Amino acid sequence: MRMDVEAAVAGVRNGDKRALARTLSMIEDESAEGRTVLDRLYPFTGQAYKVGITGPPGSGKSTLTDLLCRLLRARGETVGILAVDPSSPFSGGAILGDRIRMQTLAGDPGVYMRSMASRGSLGGLAAATQQATEALDAFGCHWILIETVGVGQSEMEVVGVADTTLLVLVPESGDGVQIMKAGLMEAGEIYVINKYDREGGDRIEKEIHLLLGVLHERMPEGAWFPPIVPTVGIRDEGGEALLAAIERHRAFLTTDPERARGRREERARDALRTLLRARLLEQAWGHLRIEERFDQRLPEVVRREISPYRLVDSLLSEVWDRMERGAS
Amino acid sequence: MRMDVEAAVAGVRNGDKRALARTLSMIEDESAEGRTVLDRLYPFTGQAYKVGITGPPGSGKSTLTDLLCRLLRARGETVGILAVDPSSPFSGGAILGDRIRMQTLAGDPGVYMRSMASRGSLGGLAAATQQATEALDAFGCHWILIETVGVGQSEMEVVGVADTTLLVLVPESGDGVQIMKAGLMEAGEIYVINKYDREGGDRIEKEIHLLLGVLHERMPEGAWFPPIVPTVGIRDEGGEALLAAIERHRAFLTTDPERARGRREERARDALRTLLRARLLEQAWGHLRIEERFDQRLPEVVRREISPYRLVDSLLSEVWDRMERGAS
Repeated sequence: MRMDVEAAVAGVRNGDKRALARTLSMIEDESAEGRTVLDRLYPFTGQAYKVGITGPPGSGKSTLTDLLCRLLRARGETVGILAVDPSSPFSGGAILGDRIRMQTLAGDPGVYMRSMASRGSLGGLAAATQQATEALDAFGCHWILIETVGVGQSEMEVVGVADTTLLVLVPESGDGVQIMKAGLMEAGEIYVINKYDREGGDRIEKEIHLLLGVLHERMPEGAWFPPIVPTVGIRDEGGEALLAAIERHRAFLTTDPERARGRREERARDALRTLLRARLLEQAWGHLRIEERFDQRLPEVVRREISPYRLVDSLLSEVWDRMERGAS
Repeated sequence: MRMDVEAAVAGVRNGDKRALARTLSMIEDESAEGRTVLDRLYPFTGQAYKVGITGPPGSGKSTLTDLLCRLLRARGETVGILAVDPSSPFSGGAILGDRIRMQTLAGDPGVYMRSMASRGSLGGLAAATQQATEALDAFGCHWILIETVGVGQSEMEVVGVADTTLLVLVPESGDGVQIMKAGLMEAGEIYVINKYDREGGDRIEKEIHLLLGVLHERMPEGAWFPPIVPTVGIRDEGGEALLAAIERHRAFLTTDPERARGRREERARDALRTLLRARLLEQAWGHLRIEERFDQRLPEVVRREISPYRLVDSLLSEVWDRMERGAS
């Protein structure tokens, strides 16, 4: 059954989970209807607080997400959970885990949970996640927890839509230098050392603290210094401390009006840029008329008269030249 | 020490592994020097046969890659291995595994192995992998095995550069319908059921065979019917049958001159398109002059006067209009 735009907008605003599910499917399908629904819902967004939870596979992100969700529910807050997996369309471990979680959380009207897996265009998942948070926001979720399955370039783009990002590590994640080399050191606003009771927990904590100190010295005055929170998610240990750290970061972002304004602008810019990139790649091929020139010159590459590197440079030069002429 | 373009080109052509390593680093860094080296090496490419190996984590892709490598070496063929992980920059399991493999293979001058992890621009990894295979090709590898850590959109783009792609499944991968829903059914030219000795091996084999039959009916006459090869990689079982299947697919692609020509054109088109997409996104931002208009109109989104969805449509329309004017 197809639900039309009006019904979806009204349903989401009235807290109808079925309408929300349909809207999220439209978003995943990157459909024009989905964008229209979001355009209509836009005035009702901007209320939810978004927390990103990323880290290597097996670091216990799902357990921590559930723990945070339960603590927030105990306070009477409503929670939306997006479990995002850019690396696997398989209904393997992640979805099985989801099913178990669904059973625990399904009865709770104050929790909405959804898995989003890789499909559609490259870079589309970050845009889809951003849009899904807007739908959950308009639906009335106070908190949105965005959890990735792994950690990497795509995952960082996915959690980039969050207000506060938790980087979840375990003692086995390797030393701080490796984490820094992986380009993840500046990725988190809060560092969580989960499974802290295992050997090496205090060692990795000290190393990360040291590295954060070095990074912080090079930052402008008044910059946020990421706290490190030890947890043992499986035993519900450290959840309150973690939530307190999130609240501190939230206060940091929102209490100073100047910083809050800058932050809102930055978020809007990021969201717009993500959307623009996705739509640009989607539309560029046809509009730039590369296809025709491409077909004309392809045989030269097949005959190895020109390398693809030279040809791409030449094709793009033509495009930008045309652009210049149009602008003048 | 910086190696210049001439030295890199000469080194790669002379079988110098150090020069090859430097060239691959230039490619990973998406540097202009790297593209120049590749442009110079281009006339010496087109000889290697490329095999992509993808499938869910834990399906035993590395073990199968090693098995194929050993069988090829026993025939006196040289092998390049690219282990690509779009989902994790962490030097965790994959790299540790690599180290062990390196030790086994390091002494063999006929094997070159390299890990490539996610970094740089989105979509850049597929382009980098494509380019890395060209460097290995010019280096003189007869075979290039491209192995991914997981399976997903990015991974499919990565193995898209291969001539033959193996989709490695295990009895636990779930039923055929799930695999089809994940959009992977048309992804492989050869289906490998690894760990076939586990329960459910014959069941998943039958299901996949059935589904492939249904798909094949809708294909043009003479289309390749993907064989299903059972293996137990850890016990070296099924390797010869797998290599035979690869050789059959290779013969299928190359013996008919018309099909071989079409295939070469298709490969060149794919390579060019991958490269073009990566370079397009890299250059578009500056050339399309979106940034200025973006900055001008951002405050409207921050004040929630216009939704980002409407604004993106409007900004892109402006761009394409300018393009049209330039073309006329």
